[in-house]
Amino acid sequence: MDTLLADEAWVEAMLSVEVALARTQARLGVIPETAAGAIAEAAKATHIDVAALARRARGAGNPVVELVRALTAATDEGAADYVHRGGTSQDILDSATMVLAARALRHTDASLARVADTLATLADEHRHTPMAARTLTQHAVPTTFGLKAAGWLTLVLDATERLRRTLTDLPVQLGGAAGTLAAYVEYARAAGVPASGHAAALTEGVAAELGLRAPAVPWHTQRTPIADLGWVSVVVTGALGKLAVDVLGASRTEVGEVAEASGGGSSAMPQKQNPVLATLIVSAARQAPAYAAMLGQSMLAEDERSPGGWHSEWQPLRETLRLAGGAAHTAAELVSGLRVFPERLAENLAMGGGTIVSERLGVVLAPVLGKAAAKELLGRIARQAAAGEGRFADLVRAAPELTDALDLEDLLAPENYLGAADELVDRVLARHMTVTRDRPQ
Amino acid sequence: MDTLLADEAWVEAMLSVEVALARTQARLGVIPETAAGAIAEAAKATHIDVAALARRARGAGNPVVELVRALTAATDEGAADYVHRGGTSQDILDSATMVLAARALRHTDASLARVADTLATLADEHRHTPMAARTLTQHAVPTTFGLKAAGWLTLVLDATERLRRTLTDLPVQLGGAAGTLAAYVEYARAAGVPASGHAAALTEGVAAELGLRAPAVPWHTQRTPIADLGWVSVVVTGALGKLAVDVLGASRTEVGEVAEASGGGSSAMPQKQNPVLATLIVSAARQAPAYAAMLGQSMLAEDERSPGGWHSEWQPLRETLRLAGGAAHTAAELVSGLRVFPERLAENLAMGGGTIVSERLGVVLAPVLGKAAAKELLGRIARQAAAGEGRFADLVRAAPELTDALDLEDLLAPENYLGAADELVDRVLARHMTVTRDRPQ
Amino acid sequence: MDTLLADEAWVEAMLSVEVALARTQARLGVIPETAAGAIAEAAKATHIDVAALARRARGAGNPVVELVRALTAATDEGAADYVHRGGTSQDILDSATMVLAARALRHTDASLARVADTLATLADEHRHTPMAARTLTQHAVPTTFGLKAAGWLTLVLDATERLRRTLTDLPVQLGGAAGTLAAYVEYARAAGVPASGHAAALTEGVAAELGLRAPAVPWHTQRTPIADLGWVSVVVTGALGKLAVDVLGASRTEVGEVAEASGGGSSAMPQKQNPVLATLIVSAARQAPAYAAMLGQSMLAEDERSPGGWHSEWQPLRETLRLAGGAAHTAAELVSGLRVFPERLAENLAMGGGTIVSERLGVVLAPVLGKAAAKELLGRIARQAAAGEGRFADLVRAAPELTDALDLEDLLAPENYLGAADELVDRVLARHMTVTRDRPQ
Amino acid sequence: MDTLLADEAWVEAMLSVEVALARTQARLGVIPETAAGAIAEAAKATHIDVAALARRARGAGNPVVELVRALTAATDEGAADYVHRGGTSQDILDSATMVLAARALRHTDASLARVADTLATLADEHRHTPMAARTLTQHAVPTTFGLKAAGWLTLVLDATERLRRTLTDLPVQLGGAAGTLAAYVEYARAAGVPASGHAAALTEGVAAELGLRAPAVPWHTQRTPIADLGWVSVVVTGALGKLAVDVLGASRTEVGEVAEASGGGSSAMPQKQNPVLATLIVSAARQAPAYAAMLGQSMLAEDERSPGGWHSEWQPLRETLRLAGGAAHTAAELVSGLRVFPERLAENLAMGGGTIVSERLGVVLAPVLGKAAAKELLGRIARQAAAGEGRFADLVRAAPELTDALDLEDLLAPENYLGAADELVDRVLARHMTVTRDRPQ
Repeated sequence: MDTLLADEAWVEAMLSVEVALARTQARLGVIPETAAGAIAEAAKATHIDVAALARRARGAGNPVVELVRALTAATDEGAADYVHRGGTSQDILDSATMVLAARALRHTDASLARVADTLATLADEHRHTPMAARTLTQHAVPTTFGLKAAGWLTLVLDATERLRRTLTDLPVQLGGAAGTLAAYVEYARAAGVPASGHAAALTEGVAAELGLRAPAVPWHTQRTPIADLGWVSVVVTGALGKLAVDVLGASRTEVGEVAEASGGGSSAMPQKQNPVLATLIVSAARQAPAYAAMLGQSMLAEDERSPGGWHSEWQPLRETLRLAGGAAHTAAELVSGLRVFPERLAENLAMGGGTIVSERLGVVLAPVLGKAAAKELLGRIARQAAAGEGRFADLVRAAPELTDALDLEDLLAPENYLGAADELVDRVLARHMTVTRDRPQ
Repeated sequence: MDTLLADEAWVEAMLSVEVALARTQARLGVIPETAAGAIAEAAKATHIDVAALARRARGAGNPVVELVRALTAATDEGAADYVHRGGTSQDILDSATMVLAARALRHTDASLARVADTLATLADEHRHTPMAARTLTQHAVPTTFGLKAAGWLTLVLDATERLRRTLTDLPVQLGGAAGTLAAYVEYARAAGVPASGHAAALTEGVAAELGLRAPAVPWHTQRTPIADLGWVSVVVTGALGKLAVDVLGASRTEVGEVAEASGGGSSAMPQKQNPVLATLIVSAARQAPAYAAMLGQSMLAEDERSPGGWHSEWQPLRETLRLAGGAAHTAAELVSGLRVFPERLAENLAMGGGTIVSERLGVVLAPVLGKAAAKELLGRIARQAAAGEGRFADLVRAAPELTDALDLEDLLAPENYLGAADELVDRVLARHMTVTRDRPQ
Repeated sequence: MDTLLADEAWVEAMLSVEVALARTQARLGVIPETAAGAIAEAAKATHIDVAALARRARGAGNPVVELVRALTAATDEGAADYVHRGGTSQDILDSATMVLAARALRHTDASLARVADTLATLADEHRHTPMAARTLTQHAVPTTFGLKAAGWLTLVLDATERLRRTLTDLPVQLGGAAGTLAAYVEYARAAGVPASGHAAALTEGVAAELGLRAPAVPWHTQRTPIADLGWVSVVVTGALGKLAVDVLGASRTEVGEVAEASGGGSSAMPQKQNPVLATLIVSAARQAPAYAAMLGQSMLAEDERSPGGWHSEWQPLRETLRLAGGAAHTAAELVSGLRVFPERLAENLAMGGGTIVSERLGVVLAPVLGKAAAKELLGRIARQAAAGEGRFADLVRAAPELTDALDLEDLLAPENYLGAADELVDRVLARHMTVTRDRPQ
Repeated sequence: MDTLLADEAWVEAMLSVEVALARTQARLGVIPETAAGAIAEAAKATHIDVAALARRARGAGNPVVELVRALTAATDEGAADYVHRGGTSQDILDSATMVLAARALRHTDASLARVADTLATLADEHRHTPMAARTLTQHAVPTTFGLKAAGWLTLVLDATERLRRTLTDLPVQLGGAAGTLAAYVEYARAAGVPASGHAAALTEGVAAELGLRAPAVPWHTQRTPIADLGWVSVVVTGALGKLAVDVLGASRTEVGEVAEASGGGSSAMPQKQNPVLATLIVSAARQAPAYAAMLGQSMLAEDERSPGGWHSEWQPLRETLRLAGGAAHTAAELVSGLRVFPERLAENLAMGGGTIVSERLGVVLAPVLGKAAAKELLGRIARQAAAGEGRFADLVRAAPELTDALDLEDLLAPENYLGAADELVDRVLARHMTVTRDRPQ
């Protein structure tokens, strides 16, 4: 992911936009085919000093001016005039950004698919592994580890759907100096190409070359595509972040229900098995929403090019795509190596001495004792248990109010109070199959 | 919008969820039909003191416990036991939130439709009204006011599409204490209703009662729906915020290209015509991204109910829905009364004395003089004009290098250098028709 | 806190600014003393319909125009002309905001002081209560509950210092229509009061009336004071949020080291003791940073009054002051009732069978066995213990490499490896004394 | 600034912390002086492959483990055992962060001082240059360019004060594995150094070596210092951002009151003079608040080391320090080259035909005509002027109601309605002198 979004990748992507522009203009008759070929050759051969480019970018407010200078210098003299014909910095930079975003999202999608597949397996394998569900940190009722995994999977599927929707929606940018494509059209006219329809043809051609969508109109100050990318990163890292906070909670020394394959160690404390992968994912998830806020704010883009709005997109967008892709990659590693300890799940489930089924007892006892009496009885037994007068289950068994007609052992077994957990797992696995079927090849 | 999201509306929505639950349980045979009727009656009659509810909510961490107490008290004795059967606070509060969100989004959608219709008219009417396009605050090339309006419309359509996608996706919440629906199922079993399939049937039934989507599984700690709502508000306010910053820029005393119908006045300065509506929209757009960040962060929801994550959603969600709805309402008022001053557009366009077509001259002169010579000539003339040696257009006309073969008057007319502006307007209007066709009835 | 920042309180504060202005102008000879008296009377008597005010505020972009109308109407005819003399909406609203902020901060400071006092007691009482320190969720080395409380106290003192610095820095706003105080000066001149020095005298007078600082110049678009307030809320809620996340972690059913005085209950699950207060605090802490971001962004205030920047401050500022004050109040309740369970602290500390002192063993064994050999030995024993071959401490005792010269029992006792914990507690308590001494009376 | 915060600088700073630790331990008698010397030598000689370090950092969750490995390998065999004695990754990384932050803040402070000096000169030079003040985009009343510059200066002074307060407050981090300094103390004891007071002595020693403050206790999960740094960046970029948005507004083609020394050009549009420096500053200011939100959120640090909270600080902190430093450097360049055009200021001031003094006329006419009649008259004249019936000033001169007793020419001169502008400039310049006097040498 770092490589996909490195400075070098941006330079390469910007050059690929220049080449796509030249090729399309050649095909449409605006520049000679040989010129497009020469430009493509030059783009391959051009060596750009990225650090120098960054320094010089400051003068113009963006790096494209320098890039075009370098590409022009590298192009055969006869073709050099055709470089960047009608182009404007924003067209090149925005389109290159979309090229890189597409690569980053495809990579992230593939990682999410690996996460989803593993979670589907975990959900299926552990659909009958009971464990304590916690609400506001406290044991509440039983659930299954399978349903927990299915919950994580649900979020990964949510994120995948949103990611793919954005991925197929990434638009090329082609607007010229201020969104009218005037110079492109003027160059076409000068070359004897009809002006009418040229803007659309050029946009569609360059989009096809770059594997992007051709938008109805330029989006130089209509920044929904940028804002969407920030959002996708939130949903991806948020989905994985939920998984990671649960892994962290379950990894606590006192809980010990799961562990990462090989926890990060400590040289001074050999017993430590730090959940390092979950830590890195949470780190990403804590940052992504603020990046999305920056990118959402960039929709406030004045005039036909915003002084500051546009420029404040570049670093946050790159960083948040990197965080999302990195989190997905890390999560694939995390879940594939996740160790689940059913015996600790069972031990913890039993900790409350049976209180974890008190909700069920309330449901069942209400018609027997009356709702108020049932509630009073269970509350009293819970307090006795908390006061150390015995295990909750034993106190229930000893309660004279409870008739022999009740199958107390059935009622007290946490594994018998799982509600629709099994069916819910099935529903999530079915959804997973649907999303999997739509995977891009 | 304030009314739609007022405290009273939340209480009413929570009661409607309780009623929907009772009705569905009655239909499925879990509780008597008469009980459901009595609960519905009680919900209508219940008077809830909202302030007292808020105060008491603090003890339980949420307002539902108190609400259920009040509803139970108001329900006929024979039916009171059936109130909130199997329910958990989060089911009621989350489902009520979705009910209110649906109302808010529908209201916002209607306002956006009004904005879009007016912008479509403006785009069409002003498709031949030339004006200066600005990039980084400076006049760049000509564009049209029609294309500017089409750009605003593009964003409103982007926002509408995202809003509607989220609106049709709003899920009911039904999970019970920890997402297994165990108590619901237990109550069904106790009433002799088959447990198998009950969770799905109950979820679908309550969803249908409330006009929400039935999700595959509960989303008690899978908070994508909340995060999505935050995002929709960003895109809505961002779209309208771009319109508003442009209106503010064009309203500046020195620019004077547009004015709001009746600018907010100042008692001490009678000449002032403050663009108050645009101001209010920008205010909303400056806030929404940070709210979305809060709501995105809420995806980090620990366990089966997050201690703090869940609770930090309520106020930001309400506030950001309010901001988005308010901005859309205000924008409808703004655009319907927007006064456009073509003469000021023309005056400003002419300010540069012709420099605004220098890009076109570069394109046309390059083949005549050679690219370098053309550039050198135009740069020199631009400097002379800036130094006060004459208007740019006059200096061009006087330049001995420019052959009689060139139609300088055509080249110097800004209205002849509009690129594909007209076609682009058409493309946006076509998109508007499509989005309009899909308007919910 | 809700009352301190309610709509009614804003209205009252705005009226108090009008009265302070009138009184100061009377004292300086700009308006008659009787007029100031009449205005003060009217302010007391004026009944403002807050909801109607809010509705009408929309037209002018702020509520002051309406407020002045109501105050003027309520003032005796002879004095009515002197209401709001030279005033501008922003002067009234900004100054009122500072008045309310001062009240909110004082209230929050008092709550923080209660939190700090209780934490100081806890730190002192538990300075010899050993417990497991955790890093990245895993037991690391021993610490004390006293040092943990001292860590919480450190943050509360950090927050208190920042809060007080801001509190004493809150400035009155007095700038007139655009920051020159021109109308104030003109009215003075018209009343025969020397213009020279009037701006400073008026500013100091109104500041003194309201208990605010007199700034060097107006800050109508120099919004550091607003941004500072957002920041203070972050530091306050962040400090308390750290305390709360630790309470949540220690409250987990499996950890059980602390509990809130009376956990929020659940009607269906009588065993539950939800840490509701910590939950509410975390909820506040998750929101405050985004509010600070909104308020920080408001520093980008165009011209002499920002269209949107100013307006986007009001609701976020009120909300974040409310969150911080509420969190401090809740934290005072939380810590005063916090139950600490030393036996659970001890049990958990012993969980690792002695691994928690492995760092110490490494330090002590290195000179005996050589650093590498010591590390190898401890790593091996840790792995054996993890594999279930015995408790770590027992395996250490049984290791033939360990000479009789070592006092293994001393080395294996966690309470003997507390580093400087005791001294650190003293240092924090000393700091607490200093901060306490500076408490405002 | 990029160099100050480059990966290489972090590595160098981390090595400097290891050296400071060794030197202090040597001085206190914990390790041999020769070992400290050897470690310092090795730190100078160590070549760290930064990219490889970053890759390997992933396994441990931080880069220090690898760094220590490399430093140990580079140290003479006899001294290698003394590397990082008692140290923990967080001590090294946090202290190194503070070292870099101190450098970055000092650099930023110096840039701000240059900005402040230039603004003070501008404020003084233009204290009698009248211009139009704008509120909500509309001309309001006259002000002076000097007062505008003084407003910018006010913010720079605000930022400077906050920056310096934080700069002198930056703490060293020394806590050991979990904040008790246990291993440091154990090593001291093993070397025969008294344990009592060692923690404080070590902390003070390392702090002195690194030029940092010695805190009362470690701040491993008391992250106020990190949050403060985020905030300082907001105030710095916000202060400069206000300057920049004003420069952008005044640079608009239609306004033309200021220009950057050499606007960024456009190859295709030779007339363009883009305000590139202001653009870059606004870009920074749009990002900094969200970074501060991330860093504020990091106060929610669980236990004795947060899994994710700590890790999410690194990149945002570096980025926001870089943005603030870059913005200050850019602002120094901007203001030193800022061209102010008094004739355009005068032209714009005159645009309204005199309406800009309508507030003053209201003040003066009220006692003459009665308040209501005066207001009515001025409103009528303003409407006539807006309707094109004449210039406002001429219509005022022609109004029969206005008695000869009034010196209309004086009243209509904008330069006579500047309120306290001149005095306010003096007050800001005096504050500038104070802040300048406290400049670090």
